[in-house]
Amino acid sequence: MGSSEKVTTAPAYSYLGPAGTFTEAALAQVPAAAGQTWHSVNNVGEALADVVSGRSVAAMIAIENSVEGGVTATQDALANIPNLRIMGEYLVPVAFDLVAPKGTTLADVNVVNAHPVAYAQCRGWLEKNLPHHGHIPSSSNVAAAASLLETDTADAAIAPAGIARHYDVEVLASGIADNPNAVTRFVLVSKTTELPAPTGSDKTSLIVELPDDRAGALLEMLEQFATRGVNLTLIQSRPIGDEFGRYRFVIDAEGHARDERVADALLGLRRFSPKVIFLGSYPRADKEQTQHSSRYADDVFTDARDWLAEILGD
Amino acid sequence: MGSSEKVTTAPAYSYLGPAGTFTEAALAQVPAAAGQTWHSVNNVGEALADVVSGRSVAAMIAIENSVEGGVTATQDALANIPNLRIMGEYLVPVAFDLVAPKGTTLADVNVVNAHPVAYAQCRGWLEKNLPHHGHIPSSSNVAAAASLLETDTADAAIAPAGIARHYDVEVLASGIADNPNAVTRFVLVSKTTELPAPTGSDKTSLIVELPDDRAGALLEMLEQFATRGVNLTLIQSRPIGDEFGRYRFVIDAEGHARDERVADALLGLRRFSPKVIFLGSYPRADKEQTQHSSRYADDVFTDARDWLAEILGD
Amino acid sequence: MGSSEKVTTAPAYSYLGPAGTFTEAALAQVPAAAGQTWHSVNNVGEALADVVSGRSVAAMIAIENSVEGGVTATQDALANIPNLRIMGEYLVPVAFDLVAPKGTTLADVNVVNAHPVAYAQCRGWLEKNLPHHGHIPSSSNVAAAASLLETDTADAAIAPAGIARHYDVEVLASGIADNPNAVTRFVLVSKTTELPAPTGSDKTSLIVELPDDRAGALLEMLEQFATRGVNLTLIQSRPIGDEFGRYRFVIDAEGHARDERVADALLGLRRFSPKVIFLGSYPRADKEQTQHSSRYADDVFTDARDWLAEILGD
Amino acid sequence: MGSSEKVTTAPAYSYLGPAGTFTEAALAQVPAAAGQTWHSVNNVGEALADVVSGRSVAAMIAIENSVEGGVTATQDALANIPNLRIMGEYLVPVAFDLVAPKGTTLADVNVVNAHPVAYAQCRGWLEKNLPHHGHIPSSSNVAAAASLLETDTADAAIAPAGIARHYDVEVLASGIADNPNAVTRFVLVSKTTELPAPTGSDKTSLIVELPDDRAGALLEMLEQFATRGVNLTLIQSRPIGDEFGRYRFVIDAEGHARDERVADALLGLRRFSPKVIFLGSYPRADKEQTQHSSRYADDVFTDARDWLAEILGD
Repeated sequence: MGSSEKVTTAPAYSYLGPAGTFTEAALAQVPAAAGQTWHSVNNVGEALADVVSGRSVAAMIAIENSVEGGVTATQDALANIPNLRIMGEYLVPVAFDLVAPKGTTLADVNVVNAHPVAYAQCRGWLEKNLPHHGHIPSSSNVAAAASLLETDTADAAIAPAGIARHYDVEVLASGIADNPNAVTRFVLVSKTTELPAPTGSDKTSLIVELPDDRAGALLEMLEQFATRGVNLTLIQSRPIGDEFGRYRFVIDAEGHARDERVADALLGLRRFSPKVIFLGSYPRADKEQTQHSSRYADDVFTDARDWLAEILGD
Repeated sequence: MGSSEKVTTAPAYSYLGPAGTFTEAALAQVPAAAGQTWHSVNNVGEALADVVSGRSVAAMIAIENSVEGGVTATQDALANIPNLRIMGEYLVPVAFDLVAPKGTTLADVNVVNAHPVAYAQCRGWLEKNLPHHGHIPSSSNVAAAASLLETDTADAAIAPAGIARHYDVEVLASGIADNPNAVTRFVLVSKTTELPAPTGSDKTSLIVELPDDRAGALLEMLEQFATRGVNLTLIQSRPIGDEFGRYRFVIDAEGHARDERVADALLGLRRFSPKVIFLGSYPRADKEQTQHSSRYADDVFTDARDWLAEILGD
Repeated sequence: MGSSEKVTTAPAYSYLGPAGTFTEAALAQVPAAAGQTWHSVNNVGEALADVVSGRSVAAMIAIENSVEGGVTATQDALANIPNLRIMGEYLVPVAFDLVAPKGTTLADVNVVNAHPVAYAQCRGWLEKNLPHHGHIPSSSNVAAAASLLETDTADAAIAPAGIARHYDVEVLASGIADNPNAVTRFVLVSKTTELPAPTGSDKTSLIVELPDDRAGALLEMLEQFATRGVNLTLIQSRPIGDEFGRYRFVIDAEGHARDERVADALLGLRRFSPKVIFLGSYPRADKEQTQHSSRYADDVFTDARDWLAEILGD
Repeated sequence: MGSSEKVTTAPAYSYLGPAGTFTEAALAQVPAAAGQTWHSVNNVGEALADVVSGRSVAAMIAIENSVEGGVTATQDALANIPNLRIMGEYLVPVAFDLVAPKGTTLADVNVVNAHPVAYAQCRGWLEKNLPHHGHIPSSSNVAAAASLLETDTADAAIAPAGIARHYDVEVLASGIADNPNAVTRFVLVSKTTELPAPTGSDKTSLIVELPDDRAGALLEMLEQFATRGVNLTLIQSRPIGDEFGRYRFVIDAEGHARDERVADALLGLRRFSPKVIFLGSYPRADKEQTQHSSRYADDVFTDARDWLAEILGD
């Protein structure tokens, strides 16, 4: 019975499905997820609900797109669901194919089914190659392809590269995204509160509300980082939603909460802000080493603490 | 013939249609548009193209939502299409119904058709009442409802309150927006470069790119406003789109470009930034008077200029 | 023998003499000094040398004058002699008498003997009442009076109010200082490293060198205080002396090193500056309670530390 | 008679005399002063009074010493006498001898006559070689030596190197200045309001009062320079003198008032400060070229103005 229970509690992972999505490609980069149960879900809320309920140990969700910016549904979910932590980030190149039912040629295509974000990312190619096409929006990149086989409302679909491995479709054109370097950033989210060890190439993700009783609050928040030599790789404003002019900020800072300068910035933020959500410190997907001035080295912080302790006689 | 030509060149206005959209409600607030031709268009790009081509003298477009934040398509269009100016802003309360073909019940609903912004504004209600729904994005709130009657890809649609007056649909639920005070801000955009006169209750809209060759650039940009006592009512980051970490900022500042402190902030921004797009100075929809410290009064600026001119012997 | 040794090691105090100086008046304000040995010395260097050698437990020295500014000899001595601590501050009103040998009248006065600083502080009175006088500089306020009785080079002297209690002179005029509110601030300096307990009305004195390898260093130093809501009551630049443009700063900050916001500012300063000399935290002479925003209350700092400790699992 | 009057109005120059002072050496560096009348005066006040009254066209006065810092009498005089301008700066190396009446030895010396600034510059040597000396301040370095021959109040004097060429004194010690590289900076002051032309190696001197109604005022003042890329070579606090804690700041900034970034900083200062005294823009004595980032080049400022003028339709 013990062993059978072990089987039922084997770690499961949730992701925005179905098979063939970029999210699935991101989850495929996680070694611990290999061979485990993968739950395909319909939206970010469902993915995170799986984590909160314990149905899955972690969920892979898109958080930022190099063309479209932050994924607001994800940012808002992370702001509103407590006790979630980002364990790692994963990059997936955005590469699209134009696919169609077998036997179709490009000349046959009048109507294209595509998720609006994918459509926007391929607009240049479409205007050049299919100047007179119409567009039907779909709910996901894979659903666009799948629907080709179910209905004839569209002649072709924009789908993630590689979709032909999952669906019986013809690839009419490959690499049709306007920006060949477009990348989507995914994060693996869990309830684990144990911090991954610092690697020297880390990110710390935060959501910070600004106090609303004073001018220049954003300036003051940024100074919490700048005065400790901590660089930001992402800063995105999101309305808190109750009235115009009130924002929270989604922030990725270089470095790990165990780096002294990051820890000190966290202290400063927490003192300043009515609400700081610590989303985690985790290794960077791009493996870039964190750069910082020697002014902000760990021993500069510990030396100062020793000096003060002596003054205070502690 | 001259007079008949005058008739054909009477000013037309473009807006995101069809009849019944929030955008139409915003355009109805513009006295000059009353009795003129209104062009219903399908998206922001089409609306602005009408302005650029001269087909319309102005277009009404949504720019910010108190729940969802900036409308990114609008922000990106204003960043990329040159020589556009905001002439005024208009507020429309946001109220949504969930509608479906006659005979549908809530239990029947699996797939919801909704404009992405409307979808985001009702996300809480949907997650509670339709936790397993799928989403098909539509190009407008009204189109979502209209498509119910044309195709069966969705079971229900999110539509502006009152839509049942225009379409033969069942209202499954009313007031489903998560925030009952939600408001959408629209702007009237034209090619006119003449500045509306200052009213004492004005806004100045800008898009500012950050220089990418130095840390703390956002901090420095904000200081351009703070050191002149200029408050911001909106600041929103948008990726420039070529790579992660490069942003432009969409900004609404209190005051008019003819206010000395705003003019001086514009000078500072222009010196600092590789690209500043001036979108206009125009009266605020909420009629709130601009507050500023007496330190930043117009005569403080003109006195300083006189003093310097005397030193320089100019 | 034990008791006689006790007598020889009774605490002695050094001050700039002779009897009758403002410095003596400051020392008279120190309860612990009452009934102890007082060493009259000739200059600040001698007074501090007494402390360093152990000849005196403490020295009273002038540090700031409300008219003349910081006493640079004191500031430089405190910067250069290590391990000194300010234990308390004392204010003495600057009140001067014009004195002369018995029998002299104001009409008889042609030449006035006065320390240059005292002379400068009474210049207005002298120009009005003795428009044709000449001035002989003396080395101290008391020496000016004393010399009247020894030589006849001067007819009168400017001396501290009350000098007639020590010397057999006539007071020709009282309260002759141009600024009736002028005050000199003295500090009691010792080698004790034990911090006086916080009283809620404290000052913290520092000498801070600026790093010379970057622009804006003074700005950055001031931010260490401003970002913790710590006000300064004194900031005085002093050249380090090796070349133009290199400064140290003599600083008095409101609050005690045991106040969290002051302690955090000290950490920031120490990390930033190549050399921070902590001169002490001690009760203010004026008993003014330290004001600070609730943003910088002690529990704001301890709460932030607790929050971070939980994140770090410490 | 016209021509004879021209002779009587030939430009005269005032300086702190007598012959042999460092000030005389500074005046000797001014080509225009060669062959003109030189008025030897007793103090800075007299020198500037000569300029105000028109007796002299200009006065040479010491303003800063690399060891002692700003010359406070000069700084205060420039703050209080209106309409003075610095036309140029001159550097003179500081080298001191200890001199005494013939026949004196170092062991005989109890009291030293010295100008306070000279005294401060030799303090280290004096504390080591004459630890128990007393100090009588004199009005000039040369007067200190001269008085040895007139009175016996002092046993020795600190005097400029070379004084023995002018006075019949014994040199007890040479090169007694603590810093062998010490330099004194002199400025030539006049009532001319015409600005010297920019040379690319200029300084701009200012006295700025801080507003007293807000915290962080010094920080704000420094930002006026930092945000325009203007470096400071001198910043010195001076009490305004009416109460503790109120300061004016004596500032030397790199660059000329005709440099756009300096002009803009002047505008910012003037708007911020209750009182800005412009003391002049003039060529640097050390001929160092002003360095500034290309961000703050003149054309960056003029381009921004052109851009704004177009927006405003001016």
